[in-house]
Order: sequence, then structure tokens, then C-alpha cells
Amino acid sequence: MSEQSTDDSVDTRSDDSVGKVYLVGSGPGDPELLTVKARRLIDEADVVLHDKLPGPEILGEIPEAKREDVGKRADGEWTPQKYTNRRLVELAYAGNTVVRLKGGDPFVFGRGGEEMEHLAAKEIPFEVVPGISSAVAGAGVAGIPVTHRDHVSSVSFVTGHEDPTKDESATDWKALADTNGTLVVLMGVGKLPLYTETLIEAGMDPETPVTLVERATWPEMTVGTGTLETIVDVRDRVGIEPPAITIIGSVASVRETVVDFLDTQPDETAGKHAGGSTA
Amino acid sequence: MSEQSTDDSVDTRSDDSVGKVYLVGSGPGDPELLTVKARRLIDEADVVLHDKLPGPEILGEIPEAKREDVGKRADGEWTPQKYTNRRLVELAYAGNTVVRLKGGDPFVFGRGGEEMEHLAAKEIPFEVVPGISSAVAGAGVAGIPVTHRDHVSSVSFVTGHEDPTKDESATDWKALADTNGTLVVLMGVGKLPLYTETLIEAGMDPETPVTLVERATWPEMTVGTGTLETIVDVRDRVGIEPPAITIIGSVASVRETVVDFLDTQPDETAGKHAGGSTA
Repeated sequence: MSEQSTDDSVDTRSDDSVGKVYLVGSGPGDPELLTVKARRLIDEADVVLHDKLPGPEILGEIPEAKREDVGKRADGEWTPQKYTNRRLVELAYAGNTVVRLKGGDPFVFGRGGEEMEHLAAKEIPFEVVPGISSAVAGAGVAGIPVTHRDHVSSVSFVTGHEDPTKDESATDWKALADTNGTLVVLMGVGKLPLYTETLIEAGMDPETPVTLVERATWPEMTVGTGTLETIVDVRDRVGIEPPAITIIGSVASVRETVVDFLDTQPDETAGKHAGGSTA
Repeated sequence: MSEQSTDDSVDTRSDDSVGKVYLVGSGPGDPELLTVKARRLIDEADVVLHDKLPGPEILGEIPEAKREDVGKRADGEWTPQKYTNRRLVELAYAGNTVVRLKGGDPFVFGRGGEEMEHLAAKEIPFEVVPGISSAVAGAGVAGIPVTHRDHVSSVSFVTGHEDPTKDESATDWKALADTNGTLVVLMGVGKLPLYTETLIEAGMDPETPVTLVERATWPEMTVGTGTLETIVDVRDRVGIEPPAITIIGSVASVRETVVDFLDTQPDETAGKHAGGSTA
């Protein structure tokens, strides 16, 4: 491998004691949807570097002494990615086994890719431990099979909250509509009016079923159901807030045919998942 | 809920003793990538109904006495979906707690949707337990971040092995190419020549990086790297066979910048994942 320039101030590296970094997905939020491996690595780690996205239940189970929150700084500002990258290197160079715990999967609209590139550039051994993305799990637990073969042959995951440094046209909603596949929008609560309108303008049927799932697999999970034309009103009436996913396509209508028998926690009322549903 | 017609011969139902069915994803194959919940439910289940897709390691850990293979019949034919559906109902009506274990996630190109609809029509309580789809995990463990924000703002999962009852045009490869997002093809080893050519004809750059990942997270995982133009030759030279995923897009090139520091099993040689790589 070619040598990489080192552009930060870490100079505590000692080749024979460099620690390993695990980029670990925590899944959608239910602690039981952690993988067996994620749970083991969290137990074994010297330090767990995390932000808020794994959710309160999972974070609450990690001993305070080994948790380090890189989600927000004391002054209330978001931590720049650069700080997180530097901290990962610092901890590994000091010989720690580090778990970088990220909500969902580390590579589905997380910034796991950037962190991985930084680790490799610093010659730090790392491993990727996939997690369940809320894009799939959020639909599934709501009774929506994103690729039901009677409906579609593809599903696309897209971010509703684009990198502001990208030009406006980075997401081609027209092309996404033309795939005729299911669309799942992550981080798309705020811009819902914008992209639903764009999809209708792109030729998608205004009657296309749309379901919003807020805090999928969390105790307070809420579902809102409508169409491309009505879903903004549903969002406002039900009070759907981030984090949530938006599922667009005919598969979203499968939910109403199964919801009466859809149980989520064996010991809770079966109707929990209908909370906020307006279907 | 409206009444559904019953069209099969099961008549052993007793309302007060009907069992619950868990539609459970087993993840990509590494037993440690089972969720904590999947592992618990497998332990607690009376019967685990499965096919071959969870893979030999996971199936090998389930006691023979509670395993029931619905993947192939004794005569070597594939079990029709109708049989699996009927068996699920039969077992639940007899009061069993049933785990229907499916490779990856039950709703990503599995037939979990059909099984769920059948259970609801028979008024059987069920729960969906998401698993890690190989579409995400296979890329991740190979060092490929499918939605790296420097590269794309969407990722699409598409099946390379379509329902033969669908008309030819069900997958719109041109529209998928036009999204400018990452494409991940599942079950796409056999038809690789067909869809790579179609994507080039649709205007995608023949130099677009493409990576094949066979048996992601299994001990014999193999990776092959090329471009839209060369990947068929790579497949043949490396000997990539199903099950495998195909990752198409500039994110596939991230692997080569990180692979030297990409570790998979702490106690194995770091080069394992380079097996078969021709990058």
C-alpha cells in the first residue's frame, strides 16, 4: 500500500501496540436487534465511541465508564466529522480496542465510509460489523415487505437530507420514480412536501401509497399512512417527527391487509403498531 | 378486518391454542450476525422452519429435533411456496411457536411478504424480526460503503433473478442507471453478462467499478473486482458462484484504498478478504 500523508497532530503511535477499530452498526434501536457480534464487541471494547443515533435503550446498556459521546460537544454544536476521525486514531494509537457504534448500518447513510478511509490512511486495522438498517427494518416491523415480488423488482434507499455541499440535482427523483420500484427515504420528514411533489411532477400516481415510520422498533414507534398526495397532512396530523423513514410504493398498502395480526412484543397489546395510523 | 376465504385443507384450528409465527431474518450467514432476538427466538421455538439460505453454520447450531427443512423435498424438487405457507399454518394451528428462518432479511427478496399475507388471512398472530440483508453486509465487509456521500445519494437493490411470470421489462435497468446511485444486484451471477451489457447500452460508463462478493461473511467468502466491461471475465477467472451480490458504482473502488487494513476475523490472516480479488 502506498504511503498516505498524515495531516493531523496525533503523534503517540507505537506500531506494536496499535489497537483495532470496529465500525459497528447498532441496528434500528431495539437492543435485541443488536447482532450477537455487536453485543460481544461492546462488552469487550475499551472504549465505545457513539453519537445519539443508536438510541437511548442501547446506549443505556453500555457502562458509562467506557462510553464516549462524539455526537455533540459541550457547547451544543455538532461534532465535526474531522474530530471523530481524529479521536478514533488517537484511541487506537494508544492501544485501545475501539467500537465506533453507529445507528443502523455503518454504511447506509452513516459516515462509516469516511471513517474507514481515515483509519486505512493512518494504517489502523479495522473491521466492519454490519447492522440492520432502519430502511429495511422500519418497513418490515410495520408489515411492509419492500420487495414483494407481486409488486416490484427493486427497492431504492435515498436520503432526504442531502449533503449541503452537493449541487441541487444530486438526487434524480425522476429517475427514481421511473424505476417503478419501492422508494425508501431516510431522514426525509422535513423535506417530505418537496420530494412528494417532485415525484408527482415526475409522473408518479398521486394515489401511490406512502407510509411514515417514526422511531422504528423503539417503544414509542409511530406509523402514519396515506398517499403521495395526502402524506404531508398525515405527517402533520399524526405529529411524525425525525428520525423516521418514508416508504413510497404499492407495497406500502400491504400493511393494511396484515396489521390486525401483526404483533410486535409478545407481552404488549397487538395494536401498538397502529399508533397514529390513519389508514 | 374483513373475512378471508380459506382455501387450504387445514382444519385443526383451535382458537385458544393457536401458536405464533416469527418471520425471522438470519442475516448473511455468520452466526454472530444473527440478532440477539433471532438467537433467543430460535432457542425458544418449538419448530424452526427453514430452507438452505441461512447457511450451514447457522443451521448447524440449531438442534436437529426442532429443525424442519422446507427448502427441498425428498424427490429433489424445490418446495412450492404454497406448501411452506400451508405448513406454517398447520404448525401454528397445532399450538406451536414457530420460527420461519430466512436468509438475510425476510422482506428483501425473500418471500416473507407472501408468507405474512397468508398468516394474516388465516388469522394467525405473527411478528417480523428483521435481519441483516447481504445486499448491505456483503458490500460492507468487503470495504464498500454503498452510500458514501462523496459518491452517491442513493442505493438500489435489484434482483438478477426475476419472477419468471413477470414480463421482460419488469426491471428498468435504464432508469436504475439514470439514478446515478449505487446498484446492488442480488442473485445476479448467472445473468451478469445480460445486465452489465444492458447498463452500458443505457449509457453507464463501461469503466464503472464493479465488485462481486460471494458468500459474504461465510468462511469461504470470495471477492472479485473489475469494471462493467471486465467483470464477466473476472467472474469466470475467479470462479464466483451463487450466492453472491454484485455492487455497481464508484463506491466499489473504495475497497482498494482500504483493503490492506481491513481485518475480518481477529485471529485470521488479514488478507482473507482479498481472496480472489483481481483489483
